[in-house]
Amino acid sequence: MSTVFGGMAVSLDGFIRSESGDLAWLNNAMAKDEDYGFAATELRTGAFVMGANTYREVAGMGGGGSPSVPTYVVTHDETLAASGQARLFSGDPGDLVARIKSSIPANKDICVFGGGQLVTEFIELGLLDELGVAVVPVILGGGVPFFGRISRWTKLELLECRSYPSGIVLLNYGLNRPG
Amino acid sequence: MSTVFGGMAVSLDGFIRSESGDLAWLNNAMAKDEDYGFAATELRTGAFVMGANTYREVAGMGGGGSPSVPTYVVTHDETLAASGQARLFSGDPGDLVARIKSSIPANKDICVFGGGQLVTEFIELGLLDELGVAVVPVILGGGVPFFGRISRWTKLELLECRSYPSGIVLLNYGLNRPG
Repeated sequence: MSTVFGGMAVSLDGFIRSESGDLAWLNNAMAKDEDYGFAATELRTGAFVMGANTYREVAGMGGGGSPSVPTYVVTHDETLAASGQARLFSGDPGDLVARIKSSIPANKDICVFGGGQLVTEFIELGLLDELGVAVVPVILGGGVPFFGRISRWTKLELLECRSYPSGIVLLNYGLNRPG
Repeated sequence: MSTVFGGMAVSLDGFIRSESGDLAWLNNAMAKDEDYGFAATELRTGAFVMGANTYREVAGMGGGGSPSVPTYVVTHDETLAASGQARLFSGDPGDLVARIKSSIPANKDICVFGGGQLVTEFIELGLLDELGVAVVPVILGGGVPFFGRISRWTKLELLECRSYPSGIVLLNYGLNRPG
């Protein structure tokens, strides 16, 4: 059964972007010879779900979907041009997840990609199965926070904790586990 | 040489208290048979530094200093009664740290205790040498944040990463390291 996973690299004080948008804090922290699970994530991903802002960024960098891995963009902005395998979606996120699950192989998963807003919404709706946070060893002091407001406590199950020589710590949690 | 350390148990989304002050999220997450380094912390502590709010809480629970481990309360509130080994201090935190270092054994350290406000101030002033964060596997969605605003990026060195069967992950960082 496909799972829905999302995550982000986050400063110790919880920001995914600095005040100015400068990414030096992240680029300087990451070691070139460390993989951070990117390869495994790429292998498992059967579809991407992202918000409009993330899609604009990804598309601007030449990304935005491949024939084998479709991208769904959750947006009400009808003027946002979808290209390649990118598909616009403006309905209920739960319906989108159900639709994607029925269209990708059962051994592939759904990656909620990008900023914290969409991931937070998926958590709020009980749609996220796995949350990965790469804790970057820096305090930014301000910027764009990863977590938005969530209306209830959500208990997590620690699935994986891995520290790298660079000091980055990968925390992977399960949500919505029965029991 | 004495080091200055501080830290806190924090939800994955960065809160040390829930909106209502209910501590069930923390108490339920902690396993009775896990130590979380409390014993080692007690052994190394030569003095406590805390803010007025934390002191009121600790004193209300019958704590607030022992003959062998003095407590310094950083406050401008002259009406706050100091008791036992608790001493009020309203000057420059750097002077306080220097004074404590000259008065405790060199193999004992200074524990900045309590809420994030004082720890954040110590980071801002470059006075904190070690920061320990126990990441509790829960999303609270709101409450009292651990980190306040800090005006500059602070690079950290991961000294220790330990995960417990309960899912709590202890991250211990060094600050202000030369180089």
